[in-house]
Amino acid sequence: MIFKCEGGVNAPLGFSAMGVFVGIKKTKKDMAMIMSQVPCIAAGTYTTNQVKAAPVLWDQKITEESGVAQAIVCNSGIANACTGEVGMQYCKEMAQVTADTFGINPDHVLVASTGVIGEQLPMDKISQGIQMLGLTMDQSADGAHLAAEAIMTTDTKAKEVSFEFRVAGQNCHIGGMCKGSGMIHPNMCTMLSFITTDVKISKELLQEALKEDIKDTYNMVSVDGDTSTNDSVLLLANGLADNKEITEKDEDYATFVEALHAVNEQLAKEMAADGEGATSLFEVKVVNADKKESAIEFAKTVVGSSLVKAAICGRDANWGRIMGALGRCSAKFNPEQVDITFASNKGNIQVVEGGMSTGYDEEKATDILTSDEVTCKIDMHMGDAEATAWGCDLTHEYVSINADYRS
Amino acid sequence: MIFKCEGGVNAPLGFSAMGVFVGIKKTKKDMAMIMSQVPCIAAGTYTTNQVKAAPVLWDQKITEESGVAQAIVCNSGIANACTGEVGMQYCKEMAQVTADTFGINPDHVLVASTGVIGEQLPMDKISQGIQMLGLTMDQSADGAHLAAEAIMTTDTKAKEVSFEFRVAGQNCHIGGMCKGSGMIHPNMCTMLSFITTDVKISKELLQEALKEDIKDTYNMVSVDGDTSTNDSVLLLANGLADNKEITEKDEDYATFVEALHAVNEQLAKEMAADGEGATSLFEVKVVNADKKESAIEFAKTVVGSSLVKAAICGRDANWGRIMGALGRCSAKFNPEQVDITFASNKGNIQVVEGGMSTGYDEEKATDILTSDEVTCKIDMHMGDAEATAWGCDLTHEYVSINADYRS
Repeated sequence: MIFKCEGGVNAPLGFSAMGVFVGIKKTKKDMAMIMSQVPCIAAGTYTTNQVKAAPVLWDQKITEESGVAQAIVCNSGIANACTGEVGMQYCKEMAQVTADTFGINPDHVLVASTGVIGEQLPMDKISQGIQMLGLTMDQSADGAHLAAEAIMTTDTKAKEVSFEFRVAGQNCHIGGMCKGSGMIHPNMCTMLSFITTDVKISKELLQEALKEDIKDTYNMVSVDGDTSTNDSVLLLANGLADNKEITEKDEDYATFVEALHAVNEQLAKEMAADGEGATSLFEVKVVNADKKESAIEFAKTVVGSSLVKAAICGRDANWGRIMGALGRCSAKFNPEQVDITFASNKGNIQVVEGGMSTGYDEEKATDILTSDEVTCKIDMHMGDAEATAWGCDLTHEYVSINADYRS
Repeated sequence: MIFKCEGGVNAPLGFSAMGVFVGIKKTKKDMAMIMSQVPCIAAGTYTTNQVKAAPVLWDQKITEESGVAQAIVCNSGIANACTGEVGMQYCKEMAQVTADTFGINPDHVLVASTGVIGEQLPMDKISQGIQMLGLTMDQSADGAHLAAEAIMTTDTKAKEVSFEFRVAGQNCHIGGMCKGSGMIHPNMCTMLSFITTDVKISKELLQEALKEDIKDTYNMVSVDGDTSTNDSVLLLANGLADNKEITEKDEDYATFVEALHAVNEQLAKEMAADGEGATSLFEVKVVNADKKESAIEFAKTVVGSSLVKAAICGRDANWGRIMGALGRCSAKFNPEQVDITFASNKGNIQVVEGGMSTGYDEEKATDILTSDEVTCKIDMHMGDAEATAWGCDLTHEYVSINADYRS
């Protein structure tokens, strides 16, 4: 059993956070810190893009080698990607200034950046920001919320969530924040997600739980098909809940995984719903596929199709585009077996049966699609595998944001 | 040597064409016919989408079995895709009515449809249209142009071109028309292209020439990443130029391939430039890749990236997005070796050297990008393979067109 609770990344014991404005962006908060009282076991998963930003390389080394970290320091506005040796040096400096300011080990500082590619970080402002953070860190929900705001780029709202769960009689907590919006696509893409927990768990299981769960959550989100140089999911577990340590895949592990999944799924859906310019969350649920990989490919291809996304924006049940998107998958299927149903809080309507129109009522379909959360269920009638992907509609606003991002 | 000439699909001897309005669309011409005086050798290449429209199945059978055709009848407005047995029956009827009207063999009639998926064709209007076409067919450039207009959907202009070339002392001609616009992507996608020639050539060489050339032309075009159920390139050769038949890969074959390529490349570029809502043709030229397949993947991924396309719309030299798009390719490369240069009729500017900014002048870059034809040259410094892909910018207009396509 897991329960929603307050506090975001500060919900777990022993964490504090804060977000401040230091002038990397023009007016909005642009630096965030998450800090644990004690060193944590750290797990991370990163972009699959071949062009990896400096902070990704820095964090990868820490989570893959020692697997121990105590802080995450993050700036928004500049991505520190395509910045060469200087960019790597700046990661080191960010970690060192954080270590000096908070009295911790520089090798325990994870760094993250998001924003424009190709520019160097203004290190004077970054250092100043870390010192400001040193004076203002906060253990309350407010601190967590300010940090969640400071990592935003084109996001329209801060995204955070936290849960309480019980392991061997002890109350434990898990909290997370993320930023997403543009450039979000399968395989971890400009998305930053920072998760904290006070559960006591072995390093191997923490990493495995994270690695498995992102496949069904963040990697099933697509906003524009592009992937980023900076995507990272960082997970810190400080063990302060003092539960009996989770060391095997027992019931306690299952409970932790359930809580971790709840955090990741909610953040993933919020990210999709807040895709650049989006007016609705678009969920594609593929059922009865022949195997899991096919179900994933079908769901992600449909949710990522520009034509389908534009139709959702227009509240047009243009199912032909969904058939077209399915058809360009490498996974095989029989078009004449496909059923498609649209659903929202306004009801549901089957538009395709056996690959052809059901002769549904277009007005009713448009009414159902006029909602801020639309689900498209696709039944392949081939087996029992399923997958769900999340995206959003493609709007004029998306183009405006991305035509002028740097100006 | 090849020379541009007038006449479009009517430039070759013995062809006539026409386009008429029969009421499938609301106000614009919606039926076209191309007819040869004599049966032709016919070649075709078709969509790779698993969901294939009825006309694709019909034509595939003809070009793959007899390889002989005399006419192409096409309607716009409704795609005759996802229409089951009834859709196949309607192809047969379209061919039969054409055969009856023009006194030819129904097995020699290729059919094509483009438009909304999932609706059945209004066969009474189609039959009426074919009879109108029977009364109005025209051998002049005007007839070809009216036919080119009648196959348009969201295209803003008719696309046609023709060339004259010499084979063994005889003047020969080749002409083509196409429609494209939305849903255009690698692997032949709602694109219809009809090519006519009076050259005398063997069936095998005609098919091979077409199959090879589409790889470097239509398949290198991407408008929105979606592929269609209906894409077809149909090529009719009636042999009326009476040249010595081309039966081997000699100099004459090379001349024919050059002319065919000129037709296909121009139509492909015009299709890209006329992508839905596009304000500029966007050409991505990858050079010095390690192998051809890598060069193709790099070029197509960059030209198809929503983020890159939106930046081009905003005249923003946001090269970080190009690096990001390259990075998500499966083909490997070293980001620190990449050079990127933008060019247009206003000049050129190198923005990236060795994976990092050259410190270029942003204003000058914006000026160069403010053109209706922009080229991005990407030097991978790995080998000597190259590939060029064509696309367009992503604009508000694209969203408007596709949000409301069916209304």
